[in-house]
Amino acid sequence: MAEAARKQRSAAAPRPVRCIVKLGGAAITNKGELESIDEESLRSACAQLRRAMSDGTSPEKVMGMDWSRRPGDPADPVVDAEGFAGMAGLGLDSNFVVVHGAGSFGHFQASRSGVHKGGLHSTLVKAGFVATRISVTSLNQEIVRALAREGIPSVGISPFACGWSTRQRNVESADASQIIESLHAGFVPVLHGDAVLDELLDCTILSGDVIIRHLAQLLSPKYVVFLTDVHGVYDRPPTDPNAVLLKEIEVDDNGGWSIVKPALQGNRNGVEISVAAHDTTGGMETKILEAAAIARLGVDVYITKVDTEHSLRALKGDVNASSDDWLGTVIRSAK
Amino acid sequence: MAEAARKQRSAAAPRPVRCIVKLGGAAITNKGELESIDEESLRSACAQLRRAMSDGTSPEKVMGMDWSRRPGDPADPVVDAEGFAGMAGLGLDSNFVVVHGAGSFGHFQASRSGVHKGGLHSTLVKAGFVATRISVTSLNQEIVRALAREGIPSVGISPFACGWSTRQRNVESADASQIIESLHAGFVPVLHGDAVLDELLDCTILSGDVIIRHLAQLLSPKYVVFLTDVHGVYDRPPTDPNAVLLKEIEVDDNGGWSIVKPALQGNRNGVEISVAAHDTTGGMETKILEAAAIARLGVDVYITKVDTEHSLRALKGDVNASSDDWLGTVIRSAK
Repeated sequence: MAEAARKQRSAAAPRPVRCIVKLGGAAITNKGELESIDEESLRSACAQLRRAMSDGTSPEKVMGMDWSRRPGDPADPVVDAEGFAGMAGLGLDSNFVVVHGAGSFGHFQASRSGVHKGGLHSTLVKAGFVATRISVTSLNQEIVRALAREGIPSVGISPFACGWSTRQRNVESADASQIIESLHAGFVPVLHGDAVLDELLDCTILSGDVIIRHLAQLLSPKYVVFLTDVHGVYDRPPTDPNAVLLKEIEVDDNGGWSIVKPALQGNRNGVEISVAAHDTTGGMETKILEAAAIARLGVDVYITKVDTEHSLRALKGDVNASSDDWLGTVIRSAK
Repeated sequence: MAEAARKQRSAAAPRPVRCIVKLGGAAITNKGELESIDEESLRSACAQLRRAMSDGTSPEKVMGMDWSRRPGDPADPVVDAEGFAGMAGLGLDSNFVVVHGAGSFGHFQASRSGVHKGGLHSTLVKAGFVATRISVTSLNQEIVRALAREGIPSVGISPFACGWSTRQRNVESADASQIIESLHAGFVPVLHGDAVLDELLDCTILSGDVIIRHLAQLLSPKYVVFLTDVHGVYDRPPTDPNAVLLKEIEVDDNGGWSIVKPALQGNRNGVEISVAAHDTTGGMETKILEAAAIARLGVDVYITKVDTEHSLRALKGDVNASSDDWLGTVIRSAK
């Protein structure tokens, strides 16, 4: 009965998810340095998210929701309880979901132990599973705190803890009910790439990009934004001086795609993408495949560089791929 | 079908939970100081847990599973991948569940905002919910890391994240499936008192003691241990020089109870417990009520002081309330 009441309440106040945001590991961590956050990029991403969420009534003064001590700083946190109590509301359309990658968190622990390959009978894999989760959840904690300091009501939700699991690395169980409940209550769920249990392999790594695709299926957001450390998808490694930014990609129902903009010489579409598309993490290929799968759902995907005017426009959903003043890649359904 | 396969696999390898351990907030934090861990007590509790889990084949040398940097210490973590790879197994009966309280984490944030009273339309309550979760999850992270440093394969599971919720402060939804999956995979789930959603109040605080009672119902452990900062339950505040440690309490099916040991003058049972039983947190009363509810399930409950020979014996399940050399309180069913 309580369950029925809850469903009814949910049905009475449908709030379609506006945006799912991926904070790429390369965008918010210093990838060359173990467990090091790129504080400036993270702060910028959180501040832009707040601006994108603002409905115009949010106060100028940002009141933070992180009332905990900072590591190494014994000073008591600033808590403006009276300020919060006097507010009519946050003035934010907080109907966003944030997913972040691992960057320089987790990868070291996972690769030392081979967690992605599975096999928990191995003590090394078991230890690596524990170590990997410690690393990625500590990054999650820092990102939740950074969002909260910008006045965004963020709550960490670990995929492992809410029972997400895989079967031969494909998502087998992906329960979004707590994510939906959190959104209904006005919170911004913050998920992350995680070590999870696998039905056949015992365990593996579930990447943030795969999580995003499943959330897009479950939540039907208006748009999805990938914030990364380059301007978007290029036709070859972006360090190549001849690299061309692919500004618009269309995906058809069969999984085929074509580059709409810019017009490239010859038919370089499929092959070039899968072979050469690239970012510094080597993860751009997965990103494109996952982004294409999202686009096939009819959800526009924007891939752009963190801490730029382009990322702010993407977060606001204010992107026009045919205009020349936006740098990034739009991936959308051909329909 | 996958679900059926999973259930079958679970059924094929039943591993009854040996023990649920409550690390009391008063035992592992410095209660007078905001967000301060009692490192020595926590370290001792983790080391004793490892000794209690040891099946006699675990190596002398403890190899840690926390491969992350320590805050403020830029040194790379020590990772003995070769040592782990060469082990036949951990040599631990890790079929334990750990639940911890908040102590000097979370209480400040919750009380400044009134999260326990609910009402998420209030921006103060919403901010306090976020702030409280940040604080309690940061403690959870530290406890998972402390267990991992002792070679215990611990995984943090946040009650909010796995969808635990209440209705008018009573537990309404308490899904233990991911806890059970984690145990089956050989991990030690680490839960904590948390801010959760409430069907009627919007939100409230779910205490570690209430979580323990529900887990005892769901998992039927052999015994439950509460580690706290006093030797057990007294007949009055333990700071009173005349306070008497209640060594054995029996609970009947109707919820009544009697003090079996020591023999007290007159009939001081019910009234004295509810009025005077006490610890420094004011939380002993809840603890006793929850412990009594667990004992009525037929599960023995041991309440004892952290970092003593008595706590080690309790964690091993090696308690004989009629012997004089064990200090603590046993609460058990009268049957």
